[in-house]
Amino acid sequence: MQEKKQVEQITSMEEDFAQWYTDVVIKADLIDYTSVKGCMVFKPAGYAIWELIQKQMDARFKETGVENVYLPMFIPESLLEKEKDHVEGFAPEVAWVTHGGMQPLQERMCVRPTSETLFCDFYRNEVHSYRDLPKIYNQWCSVVRWEKETRPFLRSREFLWQEGHTIHATFEEAEERTIQMLNLYADFCEQILAIPVVKGRKTDKEKFAGAEATYTIEALMHDGKALQSGTSHNFGDGFAKAFGIQYTDKDNTLKYPCQTSWGSTTRLIGAIIMVHGDNNGLVLPPKVAPTQVVIVPIRQQQEGVLEAADRIRKDLEAKGIRVKVDDTEKSPGWKFAEAEMRGIPVRVEIGPKDIEAGKAVLARRDTGEKSDCTLDALAETVTTLLDTIQKDMLERARQRRDLQTYTAATKEEFEKIFAEKSGFVKAMWCGDVACENEIKEKLSVTSRCMPFEQETVSDVCVCCGRPAKKLVYWGRAY
Amino acid sequence: MQEKKQVEQITSMEEDFAQWYTDVVIKADLIDYTSVKGCMVFKPAGYAIWELIQKQMDARFKETGVENVYLPMFIPESLLEKEKDHVEGFAPEVAWVTHGGMQPLQERMCVRPTSETLFCDFYRNEVHSYRDLPKIYNQWCSVVRWEKETRPFLRSREFLWQEGHTIHATFEEAEERTIQMLNLYADFCEQILAIPVVKGRKTDKEKFAGAEATYTIEALMHDGKALQSGTSHNFGDGFAKAFGIQYTDKDNTLKYPCQTSWGSTTRLIGAIIMVHGDNNGLVLPPKVAPTQVVIVPIRQQQEGVLEAADRIRKDLEAKGIRVKVDDTEKSPGWKFAEAEMRGIPVRVEIGPKDIEAGKAVLARRDTGEKSDCTLDALAETVTTLLDTIQKDMLERARQRRDLQTYTAATKEEFEKIFAEKSGFVKAMWCGDVACENEIKEKLSVTSRCMPFEQETVSDVCVCCGRPAKKLVYWGRAY
Repeated sequence: MQEKKQVEQITSMEEDFAQWYTDVVIKADLIDYTSVKGCMVFKPAGYAIWELIQKQMDARFKETGVENVYLPMFIPESLLEKEKDHVEGFAPEVAWVTHGGMQPLQERMCVRPTSETLFCDFYRNEVHSYRDLPKIYNQWCSVVRWEKETRPFLRSREFLWQEGHTIHATFEEAEERTIQMLNLYADFCEQILAIPVVKGRKTDKEKFAGAEATYTIEALMHDGKALQSGTSHNFGDGFAKAFGIQYTDKDNTLKYPCQTSWGSTTRLIGAIIMVHGDNNGLVLPPKVAPTQVVIVPIRQQQEGVLEAADRIRKDLEAKGIRVKVDDTEKSPGWKFAEAEMRGIPVRVEIGPKDIEAGKAVLARRDTGEKSDCTLDALAETVTTLLDTIQKDMLERARQRRDLQTYTAATKEEFEKIFAEKSGFVKAMWCGDVACENEIKEKLSVTSRCMPFEQETVSDVCVCCGRPAKKLVYWGRAY
Repeated sequence: MQEKKQVEQITSMEEDFAQWYTDVVIKADLIDYTSVKGCMVFKPAGYAIWELIQKQMDARFKETGVENVYLPMFIPESLLEKEKDHVEGFAPEVAWVTHGGMQPLQERMCVRPTSETLFCDFYRNEVHSYRDLPKIYNQWCSVVRWEKETRPFLRSREFLWQEGHTIHATFEEAEERTIQMLNLYADFCEQILAIPVVKGRKTDKEKFAGAEATYTIEALMHDGKALQSGTSHNFGDGFAKAFGIQYTDKDNTLKYPCQTSWGSTTRLIGAIIMVHGDNNGLVLPPKVAPTQVVIVPIRQQQEGVLEAADRIRKDLEAKGIRVKVDDTEKSPGWKFAEAEMRGIPVRVEIGPKDIEAGKAVLARRDTGEKSDCTLDALAETVTTLLDTIQKDMLERARQRRDLQTYTAATKEEFEKIFAEKSGFVKAMWCGDVACENEIKEKLSVTSRCMPFEQETVSDVCVCCGRPAKKLVYWGRAY
């Protein structure tokens, strides 16, 4: 009965999606709340997911020539203020340090909400000649944004992220890097997190403070709301001009370099939860599951059972699989429920009868399917099964995303869909921010992106009826 | 002539050790100064050393059951104040956040100088039963201490570190973990950084704010000054009592658990520089060298030279060696000097004559020795050579440390040594803080530790002449 109780403690997602999310985050042991409002503790199960994201994303970065650095966490106020749009975007939501030790500071500093200004200050020292270009730097760190409403992983006052900052001789080169990193994020989401994304460009209203162009990957959660899952910005030479960064080109003339930045955050863990989770808890894609396989011994007091479980563990470890034996005193049913709650992709059950029959039972977390497998073939079968689960999870997420993606040719259709359903709506836009504002005010819907793959679903803007310029993905967003 | 110039830019360590250190840090491209006083940029060459330290230390941690977590960077003032000794130790040197966005905060918060108080707050939620114990947690993060005098890596207002925090049922268990982690640090320094250390216990005067016992590893720099390179603290149940953390034991009684913490920082990079560096720049132990081998093609314009260099690169990479070909337009001599400045352990020179003779030239950074090696045997030879260099560097550092370690039986001897020399001095101590204070005031010398390996070099305290209780390592320290 215990296992029943544990599952009952989760609100069903159909009943109250927000509460379901909070329940999963807590019951899967990912985070804890703290005395610092809006900040959270990443517990081992939560942090381990981030470590796996970091490790695999960092390896992909390095393959494209990225070098890691670390810059200070503080930004003097005068530095933050150098780029006008940027400071307007961030000043309202930063935390200010005013005292060091017992003394008031001569100039107050904010805790970085993002580090463009610090990188500019750094590049001004480093970049003088075309020979110094490009620089392709990244840092893994935490940043602070003083949000009023916070939710674990999705929006917190401090969060973990990586921020890439590059500087190039030409606009074209900067643009190429901007798109390259967006594609890297998109591939990462699909191949590692099993989350399909739409790639596109943000409208001017939605772009990053100080950017010429912001590109985004947008994912769709189980409840039909969108989650911006990574962004990549081309700054042109705006920051270089504001900060006085210049280089001498081959032709001996002084030029302004062009810059980019690109970031992804612990939000991705929120995306994993909301794309793959179900009413039994978390469902982790094998590639970011800290434990990929849990072995549950049945009648573990009987001779030979724990030994058999341990042999399986060793076989799987030899294949490079992250595996644990749950040999605690809890009942098997309780262990099953707990492993499900934590999203472990594969469960292996092994008891006296299985041993006698030379087999074990495999259970998939994503589908619940159970099958027998001979002990000889187990390591091989589980290796293949983890790959299959990874692929199936992406495929199912893609199907659901496609089912929740609608097309609206007219204002009536557009409003009807958002009144009745939740998801992405593809509709045309005239390019005027007034229409974006009207839609946002009326429906709480924002433009998510102008997708790279443009279509024509109508000739006129879904809002004002004037000639359309772009297809836009619209949605309610986290 | 260019290469000459580059080397000349470094002050020799015999002339001015402090300036030599600063020169190496800058010329080896490890850091840059910033607009934020006392904070620095870790440039790619500097950060990559930290990444290698992190990766190898983290793997060792995990082998002992450590799990990584992440706690907030802010500590509310009321939380910091809960443990009396602790707040007294840290409050004078923290940075205070007083505003979030446009609003003043109801309670100011400091940026963590260390996270004991946050972990206690967390453990109070997590630990209720003996079943919840132990917890063996660690985080990799940055911390802030508002130092007045700063030096790159050695003392900066923000620095990177790991801080382990554990909680146990009994004092004995906590003590065991405290010592286990100290031993881990000592082994790490010796095996990975090639730095020999003295292990011991801090005197009460020098122990951590709030600890019952602080253990330390102390290394000796080239100039004879000591560097505390890692510490491990046993808090007993002091923090648990201050924070009200209690658990129900098996016998159904409420008990206070015992806690530990242990940390090591980017100071270790300073130690590497000051233990191994020479007048040509940095000398990196192979295990933390981001580039272990640089291949310098000679007459690289001639046909086949770059191709041969590239074949060697591939052979070495296949052995898991971190290798780069320097095919820039600089002269070979310039490349040699630059690779030396950056501390790359092995240089491979390959030119037309070498190719004809089926060989290459190997040069060791640590000794300057050059030797020929046939191309067939190169990968194997370099692999072995990197091991040899790693071992030789430790051995040489140990010999120098031993040469700079003196013994003083009397006050006269003690003062004479510190007047004439620089290094560790082993001398007896009565246990009275008054003697420590007198020695510090008179000679600027502090007790580094009471080593685990105690000896008796005299019966009386080197300062007051009363009966001695402990052998102490004394030294001037960074």
